[in-house]
Amino acid sequence: MVGQITGAVLALDIGGTKVAAGVGTADGTLHSVVSVPTPRRTGDDDLWEAVCDLLEPRVAGCMAVGVGCGGPMALGGETVSPLNIPAWRGFPLRRRLIERFELPVAIDNDAKALAIAEGWWGAAVGEANYLAMVVSTGVGGGIVSDGRLLDGAGGNAGHIGHVIVEPGGRLCVCGARGCLEAEASGPSIEAMTGRPPSEATTEVRRRTGRLVGRAVGSVANLLDLRLAVVAGSVALGFGDDFFDAAQGELDRTACIEFARGAMIVPCGLGADGPLLGAAAVGFRSLVTHE
Amino acid sequence: MVGQITGAVLALDIGGTKVAAGVGTADGTLHSVVSVPTPRRTGDDDLWEAVCDLLEPRVAGCMAVGVGCGGPMALGGETVSPLNIPAWRGFPLRRRLIERFELPVAIDNDAKALAIAEGWWGAAVGEANYLAMVVSTGVGGGIVSDGRLLDGAGGNAGHIGHVIVEPGGRLCVCGARGCLEAEASGPSIEAMTGRPPSEATTEVRRRTGRLVGRAVGSVANLLDLRLAVVAGSVALGFGDDFFDAAQGELDRTACIEFARGAMIVPCGLGADGPLLGAAAVGFRSLVTHE
Repeated sequence: MVGQITGAVLALDIGGTKVAAGVGTADGTLHSVVSVPTPRRTGDDDLWEAVCDLLEPRVAGCMAVGVGCGGPMALGGETVSPLNIPAWRGFPLRRRLIERFELPVAIDNDAKALAIAEGWWGAAVGEANYLAMVVSTGVGGGIVSDGRLLDGAGGNAGHIGHVIVEPGGRLCVCGARGCLEAEASGPSIEAMTGRPPSEATTEVRRRTGRLVGRAVGSVANLLDLRLAVVAGSVALGFGDDFFDAAQGELDRTACIEFARGAMIVPCGLGADGPLLGAAAVGFRSLVTHE
Repeated sequence: MVGQITGAVLALDIGGTKVAAGVGTADGTLHSVVSVPTPRRTGDDDLWEAVCDLLEPRVAGCMAVGVGCGGPMALGGETVSPLNIPAWRGFPLRRRLIERFELPVAIDNDAKALAIAEGWWGAAVGEANYLAMVVSTGVGGGIVSDGRLLDGAGGNAGHIGHVIVEPGGRLCVCGARGCLEAEASGPSIEAMTGRPPSEATTEVRRRTGRLVGRAVGSVANLLDLRLAVVAGSVALGFGDDFFDAAQGELDRTACIEFARGAMIVPCGLGADGPLLGAAAVGFRSLVTHE
């Protein structure tokens, strides 16, 4: 797909900590990148104005606006309600961007956005079947199957954070017990250990890796895929302890012939991932009609 | 997709117990159905000759041959090695059928075949996102996501039997522990209880349902889907005990907003499912270029 595209898109990544913008080109490079802390005030238009201030000077020459944003959101990002940004609840982001910038606008979940970008320019180049995931404040993901990013009924496909890895385990924010997110997210780790993830012991790092590996094993078996690309501050911060334990558990669970040899690797795009993901969402909207 | 098709296809279902054939039309009806016990001798061409005897009198007027067959198989059914049919190991079924009947031939896993058929004519009509699964001698499945049957890297996507439902549980034939198939298939139940599934106690029926419900819950959360259609002698034989327990566990695990209300229901096509699945595989090959 990436071979079909040229030109530039305006990329916008809206996170709970910072908002970033830049111009992305089809070779996977970013230009004119800028970011600001996410405005913390609630109930006003501060965040929207901050977004516009970032985009305005970069819009010239762009064919579309691509946005990666924390979920939940309505399908297509018609409205967004990012969990970590209380100021936006049902915010009509797509319509507002279209009205303001008079360009096609595509919005997707930040983890699905990362999945596209890792496939085009990162650690999953050349793969038609893979999972990309983020282990951070939450645990999310995106799945490419048969060369196509899965959306699912409401646009939430890939949400590996709610695969059950410890039946009867910790109560998750979703209401179920033993979801991966309830056992492996940053806040879950802090709640269980009394320390932030940055101070986690080796055993905690390894346990987190094992549970991620178990979820990935189930997904590899279920979807006949053999690559998981992992991003997020918890996973990357835990480093080799995490990745070695994750790979070990993946080896123990992805045993059926077609899944054997499945790999779990760190993301390839590093700190550029979220903004390149946003750019990829923009490019995707120009070459598909989904 | 089904709206685009007309005419008839020759349908062939190859199972460990019987081989069936018939002519399927686009409205989901079968004509001229016949079946024979699967020849048990190994190392000869008995099964192939039986298949030809079934197909020969039915081929006139058909546009294609569609086949549902037990796995594993090479992508596209170029070679098949059905687990329960030792006589066929790497059997070049597609080439042989093309040479003999001079028609387009499409072959797929029987559980994926069922998934298409249930979506066109059965319990998943109108759904763009759902899972179909078979709980029987093995536990398999097929997934439709965004209106498209998932194939995966080697054609094995949908294989829910190897989602981990009991970490550290029973050793599965695949080599992992706690796979759904190791806990819920007919042979697993017999190994655990010392009785065939037909004599299972209420508690065994309910436990099997709970574990199936747990796997379906993980899939519903992962893929943003809310319907699982279940076939297979174990599930259907266990009846309400099974389905009530499965729905209860699904309610406890599919809790995230988009998955809430997910349903697990018996298949809609009953005993015609396998052969209609084969017909659907044939029709699918005529309307897609995947």
